[in-house]
Amino acid sequence: MSELQIQPASVADVPTILALIGELAEFERLSHEVVATEAGLRETLFGPRPAAEVVIGRLAGEVVGFALFFPNYSTFLGRPGLYLEDLFVRPKFRGQGHGEQLLRHLASICIERNYGRLEWSVLDWNQRAISFYKGLGAKPMDEWTVFRVTGEALTKLGTPEQG
Amino acid sequence: MSELQIQPASVADVPTILALIGELAEFERLSHEVVATEAGLRETLFGPRPAAEVVIGRLAGEVVGFALFFPNYSTFLGRPGLYLEDLFVRPKFRGQGHGEQLLRHLASICIERNYGRLEWSVLDWNQRAISFYKGLGAKPMDEWTVFRVTGEALTKLGTPEQG
Repeated sequence: MSELQIQPASVADVPTILALIGELAEFERLSHEVVATEAGLRETLFGPRPAAEVVIGRLAGEVVGFALFFPNYSTFLGRPGLYLEDLFVRPKFRGQGHGEQLLRHLASICIERNYGRLEWSVLDWNQRAISFYKGLGAKPMDEWTVFRVTGEALTKLGTPEQG
Repeated sequence: MSELQIQPASVADVPTILALIGELAEFERLSHEVVATEAGLRETLFGPRPAAEVVIGRLAGEVVGFALFFPNYSTFLGRPGLYLEDLFVRPKFRGQGHGEQLLRHLASICIERNYGRLEWSVLDWNQRAISFYKGLGAKPMDEWTVFRVTGEALTKLGTPEQG
């Protein structure tokens, strides 16, 4: 396994992060959903109250992939966990163990911070990823479905009803 | 609809929160998974770095239910969202719109903070909840499954391999 250098991203990496988000969306066939901008990433990831953390993996200086994550919380455990929002390895670097190295890095952060869980979401058709994750000891939370309210439905739900 | 009083929880509410977590776990048939303690909740929710926020709903001073939530992050939107980890209304107070009032309160927090999404997970057998959420404009993210690594598998994943 080649030695991936995994480092926390800095504000100088914002253009790289936006490019990687675009490549990930393309892979997930969801490019039409990307509205993130460099300014938005700068503010929300590197502003006064960062909403998530990013690590970037490089090989001999070249960007291989990234992971974006934030703490979540388990009421049953009564302590935080780590939610991995995105893990992406550029296609030409795949099959060399870099994804696993990124995931192990995140697990080591959990141990360091006493987080009880490492969790992430996988597209059901991504069988290659599913096999990979199961091989690392991950269990699918098959009995749960995430519900989402966004856009106009969210505005409507959050606005007091007129009497 | 009776007027639920929804307030942020304080450290004095920790015993109430732990009791509600226990009642929720019982409802979800997951009581065996609860290891949270009052000390743990005090530290992780009301310590120097709170990992989640809690609101409690009361009716004439009596505790009706609670919601526990934290910010998550959408790379596609390039901004935070709100993840609702738990929403629970005590059985004897159900069917009176209190769950909807709690959910609307969370949506109003999203609007106030410029969060792009409100998300939560639902057990697939909880048809009553699913119908309720769909009626409020929520969409099931049917094509995604959450994977989880915890316990010994997490320790193993996060510990450097011996060469």
